[in-house]
Amino acid sequence: MRLFSFQLPDGSFGIGVETPEGPVNLTAAFEIYQQAKRVRQPVTFAFIQVMVEMGYGSASAIRRIVEDPWVRSKSAGLRLPQDFEFGLPILRPSKIVAIGRNYLAHVRELQHEIPTEPVFFCKAPSSLVPHGSNIVIPAWLDSRVDHEAELALVIGKPCRNVPEAEALEYIAGYSIVNDVTARAMQKEDIAAGNPWFRSKSIDTFCPMGPYFVPSDDVPDPNRLNIRLTVNGETKQQAGTASMIFPVERLVSAVSRYMTLQPGDVIATGTPEGVSPIGPGDVIEIEIDGLGTLKNQVVKEGV
Amino acid sequence: MRLFSFQLPDGSFGIGVETPEGPVNLTAAFEIYQQAKRVRQPVTFAFIQVMVEMGYGSASAIRRIVEDPWVRSKSAGLRLPQDFEFGLPILRPSKIVAIGRNYLAHVRELQHEIPTEPVFFCKAPSSLVPHGSNIVIPAWLDSRVDHEAELALVIGKPCRNVPEAEALEYIAGYSIVNDVTARAMQKEDIAAGNPWFRSKSIDTFCPMGPYFVPSDDVPDPNRLNIRLTVNGETKQQAGTASMIFPVERLVSAVSRYMTLQPGDVIATGTPEGVSPIGPGDVIEIEIDGLGTLKNQVVKEGV
Repeated sequence: MRLFSFQLPDGSFGIGVETPEGPVNLTAAFEIYQQAKRVRQPVTFAFIQVMVEMGYGSASAIRRIVEDPWVRSKSAGLRLPQDFEFGLPILRPSKIVAIGRNYLAHVRELQHEIPTEPVFFCKAPSSLVPHGSNIVIPAWLDSRVDHEAELALVIGKPCRNVPEAEALEYIAGYSIVNDVTARAMQKEDIAAGNPWFRSKSIDTFCPMGPYFVPSDDVPDPNRLNIRLTVNGETKQQAGTASMIFPVERLVSAVSRYMTLQPGDVIATGTPEGVSPIGPGDVIEIEIDGLGTLKNQVVKEGV
Repeated sequence: MRLFSFQLPDGSFGIGVETPEGPVNLTAAFEIYQQAKRVRQPVTFAFIQVMVEMGYGSASAIRRIVEDPWVRSKSAGLRLPQDFEFGLPILRPSKIVAIGRNYLAHVRELQHEIPTEPVFFCKAPSSLVPHGSNIVIPAWLDSRVDHEAELALVIGKPCRNVPEAEALEYIAGYSIVNDVTARAMQKEDIAAGNPWFRSKSIDTFCPMGPYFVPSDDVPDPNRLNIRLTVNGETKQQAGTASMIFPVERLVSAVSRYMTLQPGDVIATGTPEGVSPIGPGDVIEIEIDGLGTLKNQVVKEGV
């Protein structure tokens, strides 16, 4: 099941879901469902973040709505027009935690030490852009910028000190992140003992989407294929099975330090094959079952 | 003008304001004001974050409400009881950006290079705790933890690429932050070329408050005295005039990389005198006009 947020040319927005009959306006379906069931819940909600926080983020809850006979009887009005634009699958995470050095071949290509426990940093939520939006390189930034294809987890319940055996219970769903990195800046900062934050958090340097896929539709997040292309040419290709620390360990390790909130994002690290990107490049990331995240690179002011 | 959020023993919460007659329930005053003025705005709002985002965060706007004759005629019912607890001045910033190495004597005490432009990192919003709450050292953390007294800015309007000359216009107000740091962990991470994030973002490692003071009541944020005591003994004492980069430069520098959102916090760096803290220690930070932020250190599970 693939959920997404959308905006229409008339400015209206909501949540959509891909169905065999095409994309459906789930916000509208939910309102119809609530009228039929007389559910006393806030009627409108625009973003998957809110669904996740309200506990409506599971595939089974959404199927109940989409497959409800009364809702289906109205489905003619629920079909989304072709000209919608994708919004962010998660609008306002309280934090984006990104894992560094989680694929051996990537650790080697950047000549880092192999970590003995997960290494993680923060990407500013202001760096998020949806599927279809541009990655904008600031006018003042002339040094190397890299793509980094990553599986992203979305947390579903507040949690702290999560045991690995329970970690999957706290994941609401999955998406794709491109952890765009001002690589030369990052290397300078590391050499100077400075934080990683700025090189990872420039506006538009965190494309995410197109979908939020509830975790009950992802049987094993540690067995997904990731592929990134630049202008159609494959640059990164690996399985999440090659992660040094699997998904469960990442949730457990991060939650040892900090409480994870519903809607928080963990980007699980990138495999080998990172390479520079520049104006005009089209970056596509495909992950099994999660769709394809596509963004073009432009230079600010050009 | 000193604003704060509060929680009462009955579980109700809202925003308060210190007045010559004692602390007043501003949430209740605002509701009365709106009835009187027939203002069509959402009637209840619980946190200063929302006020800031709605543009109600200026001292003049709040004075208009608190000093309204009709509101004052009801003020008996607006007085807060003595047993309220302080909440966070900002509930859910989209990010907390903290400046490192911004006081020369502190740079020297930690044997760092003197920066030529602002160095900044991220503290997870989940590390925030209000005035009066405990700083909890995790059971597993046995190495050095330090206090760091800092002036905090709260952003009032979305902004990017802010020129220094306009920077103060984007600051809604000020508060105090204790940028608690797992120092030994931070030093190990810096030596390994790892991010600063985890040592700065442990739950409870960002006490903030007690007040949000609107910027029209802070004539010059670059001329404030900061003093931190541990168990009554002065450990840090300096003026913000000693900052290597003044407030305007910090807003300008950070906004060059990332859009700042209303409610975002910038902690401006700590002066010399950082020292280890441990269970039982009481940390107080006083900044001119901003009150005193007080928190006790405890060990988890003890």
